[in-house]
Amino acid sequence: MKIQLALDRLTIDEAMELGEKVRDEVDWIEVGTSLIKEFGIESIRRISRAFPDKEIVADVKTNDNAVYEFNMCYEAGAAIATVMGTAPIATIETCVKTADQHGKKVMIDLLNTSEEQVRQLMAFDSAIFCIHVSKDLQEVSGQTSEALKVPEGLLGGGYALAAAGGIAPEAIEGLRKMGVNVAIVGSAITKAEDPAAAAQQLRKEMEPGE
Amino acid sequence: MKIQLALDRLTIDEAMELGEKVRDEVDWIEVGTSLIKEFGIESIRRISRAFPDKEIVADVKTNDNAVYEFNMCYEAGAAIATVMGTAPIATIETCVKTADQHGKKVMIDLLNTSEEQVRQLMAFDSAIFCIHVSKDLQEVSGQTSEALKVPEGLLGGGYALAAAGGIAPEAIEGLRKMGVNVAIVGSAITKAEDPAAAAQQLRKEMEPGE
Repeated sequence: MKIQLALDRLTIDEAMELGEKVRDEVDWIEVGTSLIKEFGIESIRRISRAFPDKEIVADVKTNDNAVYEFNMCYEAGAAIATVMGTAPIATIETCVKTADQHGKKVMIDLLNTSEEQVRQLMAFDSAIFCIHVSKDLQEVSGQTSEALKVPEGLLGGGYALAAAGGIAPEAIEGLRKMGVNVAIVGSAITKAEDPAAAAQQLRKEMEPGE
Repeated sequence: MKIQLALDRLTIDEAMELGEKVRDEVDWIEVGTSLIKEFGIESIRRISRAFPDKEIVADVKTNDNAVYEFNMCYEAGAAIATVMGTAPIATIETCVKTADQHGKKVMIDLLNTSEEQVRQLMAFDSAIFCIHVSKDLQEVSGQTSEALKVPEGLLGGGYALAAAGGIAPEAIEGLRKMGVNVAIVGSAITKAEDPAAAAQQLRKEMEPGE
């Protein structure tokens, strides 16, 4: 299981400092949507230059204009870029094609997708599928990472699976049992007093299954 | 009927030059998603400073993190910010609340929403509802502005309606008949040899009903 460090609601400098603190403890580094929308593509460019040994995930949450947005992310150094699973299939297809041209990856964010949408998305089996309890669902609706469920069609089907949404160490075992490959962790690391220790604890929770 | 000039796939300088050329011919100016994701919130800040007499629409296409993204847009000078209709209802609610706190507006992008989602969204009757044939649907699936239809529940219900997706002068009459209040126009103006003349022609098509 891998840890994807999600960097959100920070300046680029703060994000880079945090990344530096946990460099040895995380696998992938996500440039969060808030960084991209606040500071633009420069956020991806600077963070990928600073962490050349990490897979950089650009959480660009594309809904449309896939070629433009995905080219932009990959050219700025991202290895993976995200598209909303609720976007039209034409957009998802274009993201996958653009990723293939770059030899890079797509992560499909399953936030608020219907069962039927998930069934259609299963055709894109080179993608990473991200189950997601969003920030607003956590803050407004009080949902927790316990609501993270892998949709039936994706369970045990050999799909690459990621999970995001208030993930703390206690959630890791459940995710591992569902076959989740990537735990996307934000505040459990970024808001910890000792971010490196927090990441180490997450890592420890992951061990039994590896 | 109003014209919302959509500025996309441009540098901020190019966007401002285009806005300048059609300043007298358009009502609202949209800072497109591509500008926000490429250049960050600075794109909204600079364009709203340059056009203080226009309503600025930040096409931020929020899927989550609504307070942060909407505060950011409004504080940068936007009068209207967009949220995806496919986002969780908790996010839409938060956008509307944040808009109310600022005395500003929400536009809900109906791209790829289901009938059931539209029914739920109708509760947010202070919002502007945007029917939308996306760029990728135009470019990949060959859809045109003829596919623009106001969902039944929103027809004639007193909702503020906008429409986007390859809108050319010929489309205006149909949109007017459906009760659309705002025509969102990008390339028909921005790629015209004479953008001001193109906007004037659109304006002329709008006249009969006004």
